[in-house]
Amino acid sequence: MTLAELARLLGGELCGDGGVRVCRVSPLPEAGPEALSFAVDDRYFPAARASRACALVVPQRIPDLDRPQIVVKNPCLALAQALRIFSPEPEIEPGISPLASVSDSAVLGLGVKIHPFVYIGEGAKIGARSEIYPHCYLGPGTEIGEDCRIYSRVSIREGTRMGSRVIIQDGAVIGSDGFGYAREGEEYRKIPQVGIVEIEDEVEIGANVTVDRATLGRTLIRKGTKIDNLVQVAHNVEVGKNTIIVAQVAIGGSCRIGDGAVLAGQVAVADHVEIGAGAQVGGQSGVLRDVPPGAKVSGTYAMPLFDWLRVQAILPRLPAMWKEMREIREKLSRNEKSGRVCSPNRPKKIRSKKKPSRGRKT
Amino acid sequence: MTLAELARLLGGELCGDGGVRVCRVSPLPEAGPEALSFAVDDRYFPAARASRACALVVPQRIPDLDRPQIVVKNPCLALAQALRIFSPEPEIEPGISPLASVSDSAVLGLGVKIHPFVYIGEGAKIGARSEIYPHCYLGPGTEIGEDCRIYSRVSIREGTRMGSRVIIQDGAVIGSDGFGYAREGEEYRKIPQVGIVEIEDEVEIGANVTVDRATLGRTLIRKGTKIDNLVQVAHNVEVGKNTIIVAQVAIGGSCRIGDGAVLAGQVAVADHVEIGAGAQVGGQSGVLRDVPPGAKVSGTYAMPLFDWLRVQAILPRLPAMWKEMREIREKLSRNEKSGRVCSPNRPKKIRSKKKPSRGRKT
Amino acid sequence: MTLAELARLLGGELCGDGGVRVCRVSPLPEAGPEALSFAVDDRYFPAARASRACALVVPQRIPDLDRPQIVVKNPCLALAQALRIFSPEPEIEPGISPLASVSDSAVLGLGVKIHPFVYIGEGAKIGARSEIYPHCYLGPGTEIGEDCRIYSRVSIREGTRMGSRVIIQDGAVIGSDGFGYAREGEEYRKIPQVGIVEIEDEVEIGANVTVDRATLGRTLIRKGTKIDNLVQVAHNVEVGKNTIIVAQVAIGGSCRIGDGAVLAGQVAVADHVEIGAGAQVGGQSGVLRDVPPGAKVSGTYAMPLFDWLRVQAILPRLPAMWKEMREIREKLSRNEKSGRVCSPNRPKKIRSKKKPSRGRKT
Repeated sequence: MTLAELARLLGGELCGDGGVRVCRVSPLPEAGPEALSFAVDDRYFPAARASRACALVVPQRIPDLDRPQIVVKNPCLALAQALRIFSPEPEIEPGISPLASVSDSAVLGLGVKIHPFVYIGEGAKIGARSEIYPHCYLGPGTEIGEDCRIYSRVSIREGTRMGSRVIIQDGAVIGSDGFGYAREGEEYRKIPQVGIVEIEDEVEIGANVTVDRATLGRTLIRKGTKIDNLVQVAHNVEVGKNTIIVAQVAIGGSCRIGDGAVLAGQVAVADHVEIGAGAQVGGQSGVLRDVPPGAKVSGTYAMPLFDWLRVQAILPRLPAMWKEMREIREKLSRNEKSGRVCSPNRPKKIRSKKKPSRGRKT
Repeated sequence: MTLAELARLLGGELCGDGGVRVCRVSPLPEAGPEALSFAVDDRYFPAARASRACALVVPQRIPDLDRPQIVVKNPCLALAQALRIFSPEPEIEPGISPLASVSDSAVLGLGVKIHPFVYIGEGAKIGARSEIYPHCYLGPGTEIGEDCRIYSRVSIREGTRMGSRVIIQDGAVIGSDGFGYAREGEEYRKIPQVGIVEIEDEVEIGANVTVDRATLGRTLIRKGTKIDNLVQVAHNVEVGKNTIIVAQVAIGGSCRIGDGAVLAGQVAVADHVEIGAGAQVGGQSGVLRDVPPGAKVSGTYAMPLFDWLRVQAILPRLPAMWKEMREIREKLSRNEKSGRVCSPNRPKKIRSKKKPSRGRKT
Repeated sequence: MTLAELARLLGGELCGDGGVRVCRVSPLPEAGPEALSFAVDDRYFPAARASRACALVVPQRIPDLDRPQIVVKNPCLALAQALRIFSPEPEIEPGISPLASVSDSAVLGLGVKIHPFVYIGEGAKIGARSEIYPHCYLGPGTEIGEDCRIYSRVSIREGTRMGSRVIIQDGAVIGSDGFGYAREGEEYRKIPQVGIVEIEDEVEIGANVTVDRATLGRTLIRKGTKIDNLVQVAHNVEVGKNTIIVAQVAIGGSCRIGDGAVLAGQVAVADHVEIGAGAQVGGQSGVLRDVPPGAKVSGTYAMPLFDWLRVQAILPRLPAMWKEMREIREKLSRNEKSGRVCSPNRPKKIRSKKKPSRGRKT
């Protein structure tokens, strides 16, 4: 493919020789003379200059570069497009494997592909052109939209509803029972989880993720949200549109996550918490209270990001502070004893010398 | 169903018209005129007054409520019962799918249901009325009790023993090899994991949980314990009766968790730690030392819950403390220089004070 | 087996009667009169003395012990060997189950064992004597080396390459799509993940682990590395040789983990971070910056281990520090008011009385 064609497909402005031939996309350091590469922002310009790529996609023209450039508004998006151009998805060959177990009452759309060892329960519906990989379990009454891709070994439990163009990576579980029990004496009795999970269009769910069904009603993941691997979404959670939930996040029961929010890796959100639209939660944070829309918070007991960064900056100085405080205390007490500062109204008892008993242990 | 019948089934006291017809259970805000709803404690009384539910289940009579009420001792338990009444579990139709692979030497109890693509190894035993969903793997010599429900894609490795009325959610792995290696130079040699996993009656295990087999002996989960999704239980762990282990907890090798303990989400327990009966560990805590029975602890280096809450309250003020300490230091030094406080017996070196040594730390 | 034979097999020095018969290996407290047991280091010597084991494997002779001992250099390694002697791995019976789905273009080595319900895609290659347990998915073009053991329900996605003697525990996903999106307005567009995963010889991967394929190029796990359950390895990560990655660790995109590093449980490593060879990261740490080779770090905002321990020691005293600081401030202000310390150049405003607004809430 020539660079001129590529510039047109990416909707970019070509600077340089459009006749250059491009055979692949490569990262900057590994690019050879037939590879196109990407400098997503100006931090990558030095690497771009050093790269052997035959041409570069850039957000603005790199001065003094001796190779052709394609200037685009959104280089990340152009990267996505270019990768698809050079590695097109294999055409799916529609068909239902004779090694699958498909209920007679299931309804399969046109062009559906069902791989071996797939189980499809009673009354399930699968939209046109969706592909179900080996070892998937689709419980009774599940509904899958059009053009979905359900990778290997995904469990979709009874009653789950899913929109179109949804992608689910291998091993995910959608619709497992929520974690709900009533205490009776020392024992716990299961609260039946009779709700469902609903997943809207263009959601992507990572490998080995778990999304629990609602106790009553539904657990809901709205359009365009992307969930990374090993995330836990508890019962009755409502996740907004176009949110990003990074690996190993745990979202407690009945939480609401607003549109466009971002939860970084290993965040935990306590039950019933509401995270506002566009809020961003730093990695490993513990969110115990509502987070306002647009806020950036972080920390084990999540606080505003800027405060958290300041706390983290001081934290390593804590032992020095402790030491200095003792020195100040002693200096003050010496001064008083020496009579130079002898306040008549000085309180008899100078308190708080006592160390917290547990402090020692921890 | 009439309210009077329902009150009788829930063992509650009816206040109001017993002839009211109830068709379903709904959450307070969504309840329509034919729905029963629940006010689990008095925090929900305002929502109960505002709800359109035709009747309410309550722990004590809500005054001035214009609708019938059923007063019960334990509304959560009544909720569990009511949900089961309106959403009875589907009757299982016993039978062994011809698409399953069942060893000739396996022993299956009466009324067992084996779904397609289940693999049952040599010498496995499955108790009466247990249901094994599609894609489950039951290794050689596994034993499953009566009335168990093993959802789709569960792996139960060789030798695992399981009591009755156990529920395992989809994708869980029971009996994978423990993480044990002997170092030899730079390399690690696998220590064979020749023990088993034993799970007692009425345990429930969440989706994509992993429970490792013991190196020697057994990993044990006692009666009535409930484990949420994506939890890791390492080799040789012993979990007591009726404990609650919330999502994404990791329990290190050879730990002992006492009866009735509660581990909140994302807790990590280091190897060989003992957590006493009835202890409660706050979310995301790191437990590096034994926790006494009944204690409530929290924190990355877990400390008593009340101490932890106080630390968390002060933590955001740490930068202010740092600044103020500098000001105090400067003021003291100014005062000294100005001669007003000039102690002749002031020691030359103000250092003093041992740095907190290793002993302090733990 | 006699103790003399065993000493020879373990390469140890026998002290005592070599004619003693040994039937099994048991932990010290549970060992009966026919069991061999292990005192891995001197902390276990008291337990060894109290044990009923007929003989002991020890790193040095325990004085005054009335039973035979085998002295070895590396008791952990000897334990691994002895367990294998008494619990030999079952011989695999080669063969391809008629219930498996194997592509005609797949190439299977001699002595391979393929269990029921395994799916093997086009062009896959499996080396001699490898065993693939039920419900595994091997995508098109995957390559597995010799003597591998892939336990039940493992997904190995298209193009994955794997060396020899690799062990993968149940439910793991190798080669799921990396978590990469380009933002376009409010929405996210998938960046195709066209790279692969490569796993070298003697790697072991735990149950329900997820390893993402690279966006471009490869995600790489080098020889001899051991990964515990429920770990997340993101796209384009490179993990060195002989590293130890404990349960529930999350490694962000494009990270490099050096040879011989150890990441304890629930560690999170941010994208693009480099952890040096031999570095050790404490449990639950958050690693946001590069870690030098050989360093030991810990903490939410990982710092050197020793600093972190000191911070953790002071942390519980934070409320006491806060209180004392207030008292010091008041004392200084009283002294100044009483005229005894009346610095003429005292600043008009004594700052930092302001409490941080968020602090109050916690």
